[in-house]
Amino acid sequence: MKKSEFSFIGDIATLFGTLPHHGFEAIGDDCTVLEVGDDALVMTTDMLVEDVHFLRGASSAEEVGRKSLMVNLSDVAAMGATPIATLLSLSLPESAQGEWSEAFMRGYYEACKESGVALVGGDTTASRDRITINVVAIGKAPKSNIKRRSAAKVGDVICVTGELGASSKGLVDIMFGDLKTEAARQHRVAQARITEGVWLGRQEGVHAMMDVSDGIASDILHIMRLSNVGATINLEAVPTKYDIRYATTGGEDYELLLTIDKESFNNIADSLKSATGTSLTAIGYITSETELRWLQDGQPADIELKGFTHF
Amino acid sequence: MKKSEFSFIGDIATLFGTLPHHGFEAIGDDCTVLEVGDDALVMTTDMLVEDVHFLRGASSAEEVGRKSLMVNLSDVAAMGATPIATLLSLSLPESAQGEWSEAFMRGYYEACKESGVALVGGDTTASRDRITINVVAIGKAPKSNIKRRSAAKVGDVICVTGELGASSKGLVDIMFGDLKTEAARQHRVAQARITEGVWLGRQEGVHAMMDVSDGIASDILHIMRLSNVGATINLEAVPTKYDIRYATTGGEDYELLLTIDKESFNNIADSLKSATGTSLTAIGYITSETELRWLQDGQPADIELKGFTHF
Repeated sequence: MKKSEFSFIGDIATLFGTLPHHGFEAIGDDCTVLEVGDDALVMTTDMLVEDVHFLRGASSAEEVGRKSLMVNLSDVAAMGATPIATLLSLSLPESAQGEWSEAFMRGYYEACKESGVALVGGDTTASRDRITINVVAIGKAPKSNIKRRSAAKVGDVICVTGELGASSKGLVDIMFGDLKTEAARQHRVAQARITEGVWLGRQEGVHAMMDVSDGIASDILHIMRLSNVGATINLEAVPTKYDIRYATTGGEDYELLLTIDKESFNNIADSLKSATGTSLTAIGYITSETELRWLQDGQPADIELKGFTHF
Repeated sequence: MKKSEFSFIGDIATLFGTLPHHGFEAIGDDCTVLEVGDDALVMTTDMLVEDVHFLRGASSAEEVGRKSLMVNLSDVAAMGATPIATLLSLSLPESAQGEWSEAFMRGYYEACKESGVALVGGDTTASRDRITINVVAIGKAPKSNIKRRSAAKVGDVICVTGELGASSKGLVDIMFGDLKTEAARQHRVAQARITEGVWLGRQEGVHAMMDVSDGIASDILHIMRLSNVGATINLEAVPTKYDIRYATTGGEDYELLLTIDKESFNNIADSLKSATGTSLTAIGYITSETELRWLQDGQPADIELKGFTHF
């Protein structure tokens, strides 16, 4: 975009910050939060545009249906909440009406069923030539389980679930026509860390949490800014099978990035592994410096890493 | 669309009807409803697509911003709820980044301010060549105030707020290059009946309610289907300055269409006028026949009326 998404969103947040909020938290986290008694409802929305976020030739309609849901459920889980419902808007050119849209809905439905979420509203309309999909996901949790980007503390261990880099490596494979690699499959078949997010939401030792959607090099900046802290990341610790650039600046991994109280880390990592089978890897720590440092084997890393840009 | 929106949504509602709903009401009304203690939260979403719902040459960016919000607030008000918050997703081609998007946000902001609603989340992304806008509106009301399409009773008076037909007459004016007519202005500057919807929500005598978005000829069918009733409408009673086709099959008037207990109608109409300045006009009555009859001065009307199709 001419004006970066960051700055446009910043302007919007400032402009609307003066309006009454009716109990909703301001823009800035994976989801907005509305406390209702002892519970909190969280809500998020994501728009997927044909030829920007997916190519009709490279992903099946079922995979796009699944992915549209999962990117939103990932944001809900990153708050520590259980996704319960979604709203879906679709604009479809004539070429996607009928077969494509029905296959899309099958993929969306199967992912809803697997995740236990309802479809409670939506809109369908025509478009001139490209598909646009907008999904809203709603989640629920005891309000004490909600994890915010603003909760990181100096000394916290920075960690990630699973492995990074597969989705962006897969995207590059697809761009070169290599649709059958394991990474390409992981790019096409999105999986949100729902069970893990909800489990981590219950742990007091977990401070800040978010999902990895633009690569940790970009995502960690949100935690730093909202928590008013810095971060040091050890490149050799980043869990990946691929080039470190995919693992740090590649988008759409939908793993969780979180900070944990130093004393609690080992116990939480072991228990998460037992409870869900998913590993939690320490990749650095929170500092008081309000800047981001990359280390390679203890030395400043000679590499420039920027977040993934979708457009 | 190849397959009508009605039938595609029907298929979706059937498919997803089997999934757990977590307390949310099923698809079918202007909004989904989630009861939370003595209150109800309502939620709705609408997608606006360039060259389908608006033309960049015929509406200013501010007007499109206002309209995107108002069509959603209209759905919230039609449930008898007060709109409190919105989420906004925007996909912008390069030609709409910068000036257009900033003017759009000003229009959206002014309409939020005027209506007392917050912007609590959203997404912005690029698109290849056309603008797509998706808005979610959230409203709140005591749960006893919520008005559903399914609540019409045989003998109810069918009535509408304000006057019908201006928006579609205005669209035709715009298509002929007549951008300055009063109807064209009403088409461009959307206004939801928020105060009226909230006021009507408090009246026990009001049974079914919805907003007029596709023309009463199409919209009344939703009330009939969900309430399992019929309707008779007197064409000469339909309040309009324009051709009866605009007033019955024209879209986007955003007036309220409701059914009221026969004994309560006069009192409610008088009180609404005093409280808000808006008129309420009786246009027919609910029958037990489950079909729609059009009368002209007491005789079956010799006219075929169909709902407005956006595409």
